[in-house]
Amino acid sequence: MTTFPKRIALLGSTGSIGRQTLDVVRKFPEQFQIVSIAARSNVELLAQQVQEFRPELVACYADTPESEEKARLLLPDALLGDQGLLAVATHVDADILVAATSGLVGLKPTLAAIGAGKAIALANKETLVMAGHLVTQAAQRVGVPIFPIDSEHSAIWQCLRGEENKNIHRLLITASGGPFRKTPLDELKDVTVSQALAHPTWHMGPKITIDSATLMNKGLEVIESRWLFQVPYESIDVVVHPESIVHSMVEMVDGSIKMQASLPSMHIPIMNALSYPDRLDVSGSHLIRELRWSEVASLHFEDLDLPRFPCFRLAVEAGKRGGTYPCALVGADEEAVDLFLHGHISYLAIAELIEAVLERHQSVDQPDVAATLDACASARRTVRELWKKYA
Amino acid sequence: MTTFPKRIALLGSTGSIGRQTLDVVRKFPEQFQIVSIAARSNVELLAQQVQEFRPELVACYADTPESEEKARLLLPDALLGDQGLLAVATHVDADILVAATSGLVGLKPTLAAIGAGKAIALANKETLVMAGHLVTQAAQRVGVPIFPIDSEHSAIWQCLRGEENKNIHRLLITASGGPFRKTPLDELKDVTVSQALAHPTWHMGPKITIDSATLMNKGLEVIESRWLFQVPYESIDVVVHPESIVHSMVEMVDGSIKMQASLPSMHIPIMNALSYPDRLDVSGSHLIRELRWSEVASLHFEDLDLPRFPCFRLAVEAGKRGGTYPCALVGADEEAVDLFLHGHISYLAIAELIEAVLERHQSVDQPDVAATLDACASARRTVRELWKKYA
Repeated sequence: MTTFPKRIALLGSTGSIGRQTLDVVRKFPEQFQIVSIAARSNVELLAQQVQEFRPELVACYADTPESEEKARLLLPDALLGDQGLLAVATHVDADILVAATSGLVGLKPTLAAIGAGKAIALANKETLVMAGHLVTQAAQRVGVPIFPIDSEHSAIWQCLRGEENKNIHRLLITASGGPFRKTPLDELKDVTVSQALAHPTWHMGPKITIDSATLMNKGLEVIESRWLFQVPYESIDVVVHPESIVHSMVEMVDGSIKMQASLPSMHIPIMNALSYPDRLDVSGSHLIRELRWSEVASLHFEDLDLPRFPCFRLAVEAGKRGGTYPCALVGADEEAVDLFLHGHISYLAIAELIEAVLERHQSVDQPDVAATLDACASARRTVRELWKKYA
Repeated sequence: MTTFPKRIALLGSTGSIGRQTLDVVRKFPEQFQIVSIAARSNVELLAQQVQEFRPELVACYADTPESEEKARLLLPDALLGDQGLLAVATHVDADILVAATSGLVGLKPTLAAIGAGKAIALANKETLVMAGHLVTQAAQRVGVPIFPIDSEHSAIWQCLRGEENKNIHRLLITASGGPFRKTPLDELKDVTVSQALAHPTWHMGPKITIDSATLMNKGLEVIESRWLFQVPYESIDVVVHPESIVHSMVEMVDGSIKMQASLPSMHIPIMNALSYPDRLDVSGSHLIRELRWSEVASLHFEDLDLPRFPCFRLAVEAGKRGGTYPCALVGADEEAVDLFLHGHISYLAIAELIEAVLERHQSVDQPDVAATLDACASARRTVRELWKKYA
């Protein structure tokens, strides 16, 4: 039995998922309450959010002296640094943690929240990719659920409502295919940063937009799916679906396929994670644009053109190898994409650099948190050592 | 807790659904057993089925003296007539009745089986259209489930697994649109029987194929949905989807849409009805052809062109009016389609005749079984009185 309001600890409140989480809380004030909140460097927005939502605890993991100073000024009661993040994630009054930070910073607070018995609404990719074994083992041990906040995993999760995992034949993750789905292969070497940032269906930050162009993002989603739904890699496939209307599918053992669809919206995955097992009624509200099938008119599906997307292959290989390979993948990709965004390497060099790092990587089996972070940091260093050869 | 084998009473074993039900039983002999079986006039096939599945009770509701004689010869132990049907439907050992007769004959046995506490796997359209109030009230009173066996309702039912009915925003039934989806309106008056029998995606008997061309069939499905899922007509819509891959959808109140898909197959709805809440593993078997998305390539959706399909409008109006209007609709349609199939009236006259019958119909509120059957018979008579005006 759920009691209301459900009390939320929110990590990453000023990012896209964080702000949209607050949209939902604003729309359903009887049902949700923010008890603790943390953001990184957008201190002004954090201060506004604190004013509006009146959490009991605020943290600012400021990453520059300037934003730290601003935090002291605007939010004198806020905790600073990693300890603040941990305190927000494990706040005694919180029922559920929305983990919406980007990058590695969310891993330790998420594990701490699981240890403290909080349900987890997980928007952070790296957490499951790098430490899926730690997160899912801890969640099983404590008996807390992990609810995905992203379109593809939320789609699969919604399709699996009322179904048993043993009856899954195959998960089918949809991929828009990004801006280079049809670009002649020999033109990929000349792709510019602004071309790569022009994603056809979703508007996101630069790092994840590049990961969507290379389909690294889709490879990471395959790894996340392996952990979230506990199915082998052989039962996870990707199908290209340029309209991004069907967010993923599940094929059951009896040949029945379940699909989840909507116009692109992160509010739907967020609402599902917050309200499960119920659903929130937003019919007629501005939060969701209704999908009109006659306007959509047609949905297309095609096989993934693997040679076009080496980052996808590298991600799935790293997932299958296990150990710290996925951590090295994450570190190498972050650094390589950063080099590309700064104009230091070409688009094709992203995959070449990552592959070179993975070839050199010394994997550790069943890594603990320290070992996952080490592997990631080590891969970043390797990229910095190697990149000029690919410039 | 389900015990195995699940014991099945099968009405209509020689029709398309009946034979496919036996395919499933044949494939899973540990899980299912036929305890009683009934068919109408295909006595040879019924005798073969009896030989193979060894039911405890056999009935033949032979509709001609010839087939009755044949039944006495080939199946000397078979019960004949209506009493046989009732005995098969309520067999003491049966856990579930598969009601796969066509027409009105299934109504009384289905109600009797509900009274006897059997779960109902319902393939017969007329039962819910004519007596949805009686069937669903009885099922609720006794506490037995009604599982749909047809693509659209099974799709909706599968989408609703793990969901609460209160969270339904809208049911969206897909319609292939039939062979005349794009025919110029002024050519519809010249449609021939063989054109109307050429359904683009499903192969079925002549009556239901004509009902699919006129979309009467889709209108009847709207009425069935109202009873099966207990949602108001205002929350049931139809969308045209010519490929018949997505078998229907449910829009939830939070804007999330769930869809169920497969290549056209009646085995999937049958398996779902028989195995619920589990699913049967047929991966790699010949029973189901796997859907390859790259071969499907594209799915199309468009609004229903209402002026093109007056039978659809008449059906939904009859459903909304309630009383015995749906019974009159069923009777008028059967007779009008029969006249069309015999070349006596034009394609467009089917709807005109039905509309004329409904205008003359004297509806009875909350009809009992006798009143539903009377209304249907009376509508047939009215068609026979009126049709020459439309020839």
